[in-house]
Amino acid sequence: MFVAMNRFKVKKDRTADFEARWRNRDSHLKEMPGFTAFHLLKGPEADDHILYASHTIWETREAFEAWTHSDAFRKAHANAGSGNDEPVTIGPPQFEGFESVVDA
Amino acid sequence: MFVAMNRFKVKKDRTADFEARWRNRDSHLKEMPGFTAFHLLKGPEADDHILYASHTIWETREAFEAWTHSDAFRKAHANAGSGNDEPVTIGPPQFEGFESVVDA
Repeated sequence: MFVAMNRFKVKKDRTADFEARWRNRDSHLKEMPGFTAFHLLKGPEADDHILYASHTIWETREAFEAWTHSDAFRKAHANAGSGNDEPVTIGPPQFEGFESVVDA
Repeated sequence: MFVAMNRFKVKKDRTADFEARWRNRDSHLKEMPGFTAFHLLKGPEADDHILYASHTIWETREAFEAWTHSDAFRKAHANAGSGNDEPVTIGPPQFEGFESVVDA
């Protein structure tokens, strides 16, 4: 199992906008070999933001990497950060990839 | 879905010890209502450590909280940080709880 997480610091007054973007996204993830599950996770609150994480479970790291090189990935990210709108996040997202080493 | 993660900065020469502790742990998680899955995840490498995360999926935040108040939790954590050994981690673990807000 491989977990791909992107951590986003979302401005507290923009969480509804941020969540809506993910809700309306057409990611084509389900068509990808090795895809297991996707969740947008809402995490702890800090002074100036709420931490969110996109959380995708893949069968293997290789399946995740194949997705990042796919047309589907390019399309899903085509609108990320575009437009002249005031950003809803503080700074860029922080990617972390995790390999499962112990299951229980 | 609720994801409970504890992030550990593990010293690079102690990762085998760290993983063995989790492999040999008798957590009783599977007996807990609302428990879905546990994984120990190995994440990105930094200068002085490798990031690990314990990653437990629960049906609800309430199920997770019931576990933290259970005898099973107390037993599973009874040996955490005990002994006179040189610690295998840098600093204390950092807990983050996440609620799923978008599924796909």
